[in-house]
Amino acid sequence: MKDYVITLMDEKKYVQARKELIELNAVDIAEILEEIDTNNALLLFRILPKDVAVDVFANLSNENQKYIINAITDKEIQYIMDELFFDDMIDILEEMPAIIVKKIIKNTKEEERRLINQFLKYPSNSAGSLMTIEYVGLQKEMTVKQSMEYIKKIGIDKETIYTCYVMAENRKLEGIVSLRKLVVSDDHKTVEEIMEKGVIYVNTYEDQEEIAHVFKKYDFIAVPVVDKEERLIGIITIDDIVDVIEQENTEDFHKMAAMEPSEEEYLETSVFTLARKRIFWLMALMISAIFTGSIIKRFEDVLQSVVALAVFMPMLMGTGGNAGAQSSTLIIRGMALDEIELKDVFKVIWKEFRVSSLVGIILSLVNFIRLYYFQSVDIKISMTVCTTLFIVVVLAKVVGGTLPIVARSLKLDPAIMASPMITTIVDAVSLFVYFSIATRFLGIA
Amino acid sequence: MKDYVITLMDEKKYVQARKELIELNAVDIAEILEEIDTNNALLLFRILPKDVAVDVFANLSNENQKYIINAITDKEIQYIMDELFFDDMIDILEEMPAIIVKKIIKNTKEEERRLINQFLKYPSNSAGSLMTIEYVGLQKEMTVKQSMEYIKKIGIDKETIYTCYVMAENRKLEGIVSLRKLVVSDDHKTVEEIMEKGVIYVNTYEDQEEIAHVFKKYDFIAVPVVDKEERLIGIITIDDIVDVIEQENTEDFHKMAAMEPSEEEYLETSVFTLARKRIFWLMALMISAIFTGSIIKRFEDVLQSVVALAVFMPMLMGTGGNAGAQSSTLIIRGMALDEIELKDVFKVIWKEFRVSSLVGIILSLVNFIRLYYFQSVDIKISMTVCTTLFIVVVLAKVVGGTLPIVARSLKLDPAIMASPMITTIVDAVSLFVYFSIATRFLGIA
Repeated sequence: MKDYVITLMDEKKYVQARKELIELNAVDIAEILEEIDTNNALLLFRILPKDVAVDVFANLSNENQKYIINAITDKEIQYIMDELFFDDMIDILEEMPAIIVKKIIKNTKEEERRLINQFLKYPSNSAGSLMTIEYVGLQKEMTVKQSMEYIKKIGIDKETIYTCYVMAENRKLEGIVSLRKLVVSDDHKTVEEIMEKGVIYVNTYEDQEEIAHVFKKYDFIAVPVVDKEERLIGIITIDDIVDVIEQENTEDFHKMAAMEPSEEEYLETSVFTLARKRIFWLMALMISAIFTGSIIKRFEDVLQSVVALAVFMPMLMGTGGNAGAQSSTLIIRGMALDEIELKDVFKVIWKEFRVSSLVGIILSLVNFIRLYYFQSVDIKISMTVCTTLFIVVVLAKVVGGTLPIVARSLKLDPAIMASPMITTIVDAVSLFVYFSIATRFLGIA
Repeated sequence: MKDYVITLMDEKKYVQARKELIELNAVDIAEILEEIDTNNALLLFRILPKDVAVDVFANLSNENQKYIINAITDKEIQYIMDELFFDDMIDILEEMPAIIVKKIIKNTKEEERRLINQFLKYPSNSAGSLMTIEYVGLQKEMTVKQSMEYIKKIGIDKETIYTCYVMAENRKLEGIVSLRKLVVSDDHKTVEEIMEKGVIYVNTYEDQEEIAHVFKKYDFIAVPVVDKEERLIGIITIDDIVDVIEQENTEDFHKMAAMEPSEEEYLETSVFTLARKRIFWLMALMISAIFTGSIIKRFEDVLQSVVALAVFMPMLMGTGGNAGAQSSTLIIRGMALDEIELKDVFKVIWKEFRVSSLVGIILSLVNFIRLYYFQSVDIKISMTVCTTLFIVVVLAKVVGGTLPIVARSLKLDPAIMASPMITTIVDAVSLFVYFSIATRFLGIA
């Protein structure tokens, strides 16, 4: 399709290209524009029907949005900004450089400019930064018939008309009524008779993670946002929350791999930024691994006398690290999904103890058979390795399962207690256990 | 609230308890019922208004659903099953033991029974298993006025009325029209004039991950599901997809920590099941770590002559593992979000090479200063360790970034090429490099 459109553009068959494009969803049109050269893209953008152009604009990359804003007239900018839903406009303004923001704001009305400034002040990742103001507001005295006539008049400009918000004169939220309820109710009933009073809402300063939980729990498609006096300020719709959910998950993935989280796409991030997000934790973990090395140094003479012990160090440290990572991942994920809470810590410890004992016995037995029967390793060394393996697996899983909960209780993000951190701790402990047992079993002074 | 309700129940003030409860959202009522004893829960459930009871039932745990089905009359079961949305009913039937399923189906009409059996056959995690049949179907000849009257009549029973589906006589999907469009359009217009023709749909057998992508990409609240002949079979709504997204993410988390994915909540999973999901990979990685051990064995004499080399093994292996995990996590996540594709492999290699060189140089320098200046370690050993560190970081990141892409090209899940696998590979390579360099620098035969 893209190639067909490009061919049509090259042949200057603009009307035909436009005809092809408008059959598609705005998201797909934006994708095509992203991939063709900027001159043709600008041309195509200009000949699209105005309302389609606005939707397409909202879906372009920031780069292309900048390019287009720089290239079109002030009047065209004003049209786009007027038609965009408020939250999309705020998103765009947050990403544009100051000179483009000035150009855009120059072309918006005074009242809207004040609102924009207010919204840009909300902390990123808060309800205030996600919400939009294009909701349907009704009064409880209105009849169903009056409400439907009102919605018919103004509905096309609203982000959603499917949930309507009933406000008192001071804008205090009194209830909500779904469009479905309005459609199926008798014309003469009042909004007050059919609305739901127990409204679930969020505050402007609440974090997006909290809001995502509300959506997931109640299966809402929109949630009202109120200020400290419970006055309705705006609404957040489900499509924005789906993006938030993925963002929060990506953040967890990054933190659990010992990186500063990044919101940019990988291929669009500079080498320098990628390095900067990785170096801190790599350095910190490297330095703590030095502590592990000092344990080996302390037992250097043990190693000197039985160098064969070194052969099993990777297997012990690796298995301990993997076992610990399994536990910590399950607990971190369980806490993120609200399935595990702080008060469950003893249940978790007891569960991990039993699971690790079971797993540890199996691994130790398999290993013992491998070492003693297949590789004819000295019985004392085999015993040392396998006993250590069992202890390491149990310790790793109990520690791996508990540390994220400890982190949460200290108001830290549990995700930092993931594989890299757990592995470093478990490495140190395993080696200490290993050499201590070796000293005893092998009768080394 | 829960304690208040229990107190009311104990005092047999049932009407009061009911009054308190019906102010709440069905999800919250279900939460309260979960926490009170089963006798009181059953009592409360029975005195709830019928339509509320159905919503509450859909939100109970499987355990409590089983208990209630066993305890109530056939007539009550029939009512619940009639009122439940089809996809919720299928979800419940999939989780109930056979004897309960029999009891439920005994009380459903013949036609519905056939439909249920058809739906239960769809593979789990496919569109067929997620969809529901309660959608609004219109014909293109209907006017807006006729459509609104129709929706008013049947809308209360539909999962969603916000997107309506326009079908030809043979049920072939011809277009969609949003309720918003209907509400804001003139009464006399026909559906054909206002509907959208380029419908984006999914097939019954498509995997839920694909469907989640469609929702995320286009910000839909419902998507139609068609069969091979493009006939409309059902719809999937956004609330079910939000659950799917979290499920898919949890699956990735588990795989990346070397576990078989589990859909159950951690605290509700038995010790035996937890152990079973962990043992396979732990065993496999343990056995591959044996390979790493054999590298040490091969260089045993090197270690014997310079035992001090063992001191730095954890730091080298650990840093390599962490570095590799950072890269593989970014690439796996990028592929899951469709930001990185197979064709980007060379861009990724080149990017990782540059990032790792930058990070590697910084880490090596810091380490050298630490070893040589602060701990007065022999210069040759310091050089050995730091050179190895640099090579290990570069290798780890390039390998860590590339292997997930290789896995995807072999039609494997990239998530298996995460920390545990990468770490094991990087460990072996780092030790080989370490001892080879040591042999040269330290002039060991």
